[in-house]
Amino acid sequence: MTNIIMLGCNGRMGQMITDIVAKDDEAQIVAGIDIVNNRENPYPVFTDIKDCDVKADAIIDFSSANGFEERMDYAVDKQIPIIVCSTGLSDEQLDYLKEASKKVAVLKSANMSLGVNLLIKLVKEAAKKLATEGFDVEIVEKHHNQKLDAPSGTALALADSINDEMGGQYEYVYDRSKVRQKRDKKELGISAVRGGTIVGEHDVIFAGTDEVVTFSHTAYSRAVFAKGSVTAAKFIKGKAAGLYDMADVLM
Amino acid sequence: MTNIIMLGCNGRMGQMITDIVAKDDEAQIVAGIDIVNNRENPYPVFTDIKDCDVKADAIIDFSSANGFEERMDYAVDKQIPIIVCSTGLSDEQLDYLKEASKKVAVLKSANMSLGVNLLIKLVKEAAKKLATEGFDVEIVEKHHNQKLDAPSGTALALADSINDEMGGQYEYVYDRSKVRQKRDKKELGISAVRGGTIVGEHDVIFAGTDEVVTFSHTAYSRAVFAKGSVTAAKFIKGKAAGLYDMADVLM
Amino acid sequence: MTNIIMLGCNGRMGQMITDIVAKDDEAQIVAGIDIVNNRENPYPVFTDIKDCDVKADAIIDFSSANGFEERMDYAVDKQIPIIVCSTGLSDEQLDYLKEASKKVAVLKSANMSLGVNLLIKLVKEAAKKLATEGFDVEIVEKHHNQKLDAPSGTALALADSINDEMGGQYEYVYDRSKVRQKRDKKELGISAVRGGTIVGEHDVIFAGTDEVVTFSHTAYSRAVFAKGSVTAAKFIKGKAAGLYDMADVLM
Amino acid sequence: MTNIIMLGCNGRMGQMITDIVAKDDEAQIVAGIDIVNNRENPYPVFTDIKDCDVKADAIIDFSSANGFEERMDYAVDKQIPIIVCSTGLSDEQLDYLKEASKKVAVLKSANMSLGVNLLIKLVKEAAKKLATEGFDVEIVEKHHNQKLDAPSGTALALADSINDEMGGQYEYVYDRSKVRQKRDKKELGISAVRGGTIVGEHDVIFAGTDEVVTFSHTAYSRAVFAKGSVTAAKFIKGKAAGLYDMADVLM
Repeated sequence: MTNIIMLGCNGRMGQMITDIVAKDDEAQIVAGIDIVNNRENPYPVFTDIKDCDVKADAIIDFSSANGFEERMDYAVDKQIPIIVCSTGLSDEQLDYLKEASKKVAVLKSANMSLGVNLLIKLVKEAAKKLATEGFDVEIVEKHHNQKLDAPSGTALALADSINDEMGGQYEYVYDRSKVRQKRDKKELGISAVRGGTIVGEHDVIFAGTDEVVTFSHTAYSRAVFAKGSVTAAKFIKGKAAGLYDMADVLM
Repeated sequence: MTNIIMLGCNGRMGQMITDIVAKDDEAQIVAGIDIVNNRENPYPVFTDIKDCDVKADAIIDFSSANGFEERMDYAVDKQIPIIVCSTGLSDEQLDYLKEASKKVAVLKSANMSLGVNLLIKLVKEAAKKLATEGFDVEIVEKHHNQKLDAPSGTALALADSINDEMGGQYEYVYDRSKVRQKRDKKELGISAVRGGTIVGEHDVIFAGTDEVVTFSHTAYSRAVFAKGSVTAAKFIKGKAAGLYDMADVLM
Repeated sequence: MTNIIMLGCNGRMGQMITDIVAKDDEAQIVAGIDIVNNRENPYPVFTDIKDCDVKADAIIDFSSANGFEERMDYAVDKQIPIIVCSTGLSDEQLDYLKEASKKVAVLKSANMSLGVNLLIKLVKEAAKKLATEGFDVEIVEKHHNQKLDAPSGTALALADSINDEMGGQYEYVYDRSKVRQKRDKKELGISAVRGGTIVGEHDVIFAGTDEVVTFSHTAYSRAVFAKGSVTAAKFIKGKAAGLYDMADVLM
Repeated sequence: MTNIIMLGCNGRMGQMITDIVAKDDEAQIVAGIDIVNNRENPYPVFTDIKDCDVKADAIIDFSSANGFEERMDYAVDKQIPIIVCSTGLSDEQLDYLKEASKKVAVLKSANMSLGVNLLIKLVKEAAKKLATEGFDVEIVEKHHNQKLDAPSGTALALADSINDEMGGQYEYVYDRSKVRQKRDKKELGISAVRGGTIVGEHDVIFAGTDEVVTFSHTAYSRAVFAKGSVTAAKFIKGKAAGLYDMADVLM
């Protein structure tokens, strides 16, 4: 049994995780922390993290970047491994995280879904075999029409995984309409489709002579990120201090 | 039975059409024209079009832009409807074609495949229903790594078909990596993937709230263009003078 | 403005529709009916339909089959057009519905999503062109692992739409592993994939010589069915007595 | 440089390999064997294998099952590693092959394409991670309408690869239309789509809670099998006696 402290328990992701853990025999939330205590939860909720003295095996943090340092201090002080899912952390906060990871286990990942992290690992192997044989690599990602950035962080993580494996040989190409020329072998095209409420789709395409291999991931709801954080919590229980990411969960 | 004169009969497309027609009970090639007569064909081949006095219901022209005018004159003189598949015609040649179409039936199309031309028609209907209901429209096309232009002419034809239906409201967007902002309703993104020997794939995506409708076409070989030209030849037999395209074949 | 009475307003679909209508400038819920009144709604809720005397333009019914006749009587008495989304209606209830539709406008559909109903219409046109030219038709549907029936009602509706257009020539084939023989032209294969929490995906595949045209629909959440019912409500406002379905909404 | 003897050099696959090798700087065909010598080839052709005394690093055999033993004897006698691509071998012939592989390197594979063999390897890893986390596994394959067997040998090889990894826990399911019940965790559904001239497509689908990972392979022409055999020939050059398959080429 993995006992979890849920930071940001009354937010959308916190509530989603509450529902997921409720059906999980191997994990339970033993305490929640949130600045507002406006929901009924099957665990005690503290509006100030300092008041929480509940023993736990892991912390999942889905609160905002604001107050991040205090939460890291808590994890270090109590020696509870922590899954960091806050987004928009500043460079200073990322440094703070790195320092903290010397004293307690910290897991942070661009994308918490199990499937994406598996692909980040497998496209590396595919590149080693297929790109070496002359296959071209391209990525197409699709997201909802409210997304600000393009391409997605996950698309870049997939591209970087391939590029690392191939010695950094690729140049990422986002637009082919401005030139009239054949594709260069060193290009790695990344296309961003935007529309409707698409949660997130990623295709990594290896195109060779008369054959194409495609690795695809589709997220149907943000619940995959919630689920991934619970899997990560089970993984990090009892781990030594250090910086982990979701790829480690898959080892 | 549709009797066909095949211009450019000894080229790659001409030979492909020869093979296709050989298995077709409703069409036959009655004569071929090519500047070289280096293959065995089951029909007489003339190296000079002027020498060909064979009666026919349709001409399929897959020769080069060079000598285009003489071939159009032949179609007009003999009053044989013609399927024009030559690419790279100059503006002058296109004007010449337009003039000729006042005297004989002429069919010309950006893409000779039956499937693509059906989609050009159906996405129009889809746009009328779905775009009006707030669905976003995006196109992804994939071609081999030797293709010079991006996006493909077919992708643009699909986009134009939708844009015409919607009163020209769309702005085509080829790159989203340079800005950090939400998608505008008036955007129509077109992404071009390049890799390997992909013959041609086109996805037209209508993305709404929690649902996506996609229209896809995959070409597996250039034979689809050969087959389309034969279907067009059967269609144009006996037609009055005028300018036709593959969409008319589907009416 | 379309004023709606929501039957089953406190169920999952009822609440989803409440949220959707809240953001819709052209529709509003003016009353809800449910056997339990356990939620806060921005409209009066009646636990007995007889007590509801609110004027409205349309009724959306997402309650269970139980009590169906009383709800139809209400629509007839008050002369309010009704969108019937209850599932599992008995043959007697379907007859009751048909009788009622002689006195008031009734809309009922196998699938309330806009996208699926558009496809049901467009695959008919595609079949007329492509199947006639020798393309083979196949359907693949994917749903979550809790679904009892296979293939889905929507897959069958898509197949029936094509089969009607083609004069009923097709035999539906669900399994090819038992015989060792070539596909017959009159087969229409329907494959059912089951896994995870997939909400619903349908591919209608037209496979010809060296080209394939695919029509795909993906539902990301049950909200598409909620949204479709609101679109249907706007459509049915002011309509004469008769039996309608979602295809009519798209005309 | 890998010097190749091409058995069945004048057949469709033999000619395809001849074209591929002509553009390959690291391989060349030094002799061809075929019962008929009716084509111009850039290498000497022998109608009787006994007459061929050309030194080589590898043999590629794309001839028929007929005369298989004599060809294996040749490989053993001359001590030239052999890529066996003949199909329809009898059990006796497969035993003969196994015996021969004790004396010379022999490579045989269900599917010669690089991409498929990579997938056979990677889906094993995916299963270990995803199936263990509760993802359901399903396979959809698509082939042309002339194919006799269903599902394809490659689909079964993909399923077997996953099943081996998971301790043989799966039961393959080819039809869900006969029962009305939820999917069992131990099912692995395999669907076979047949239509047009589709060369071969395979999707391996891992469906979990709100996310789906798909591994896809598309073959656009039989040239992928030709190309795979040349890659295999380069691999097997200089290898010790033993039985290899395409997966070894990818190690």
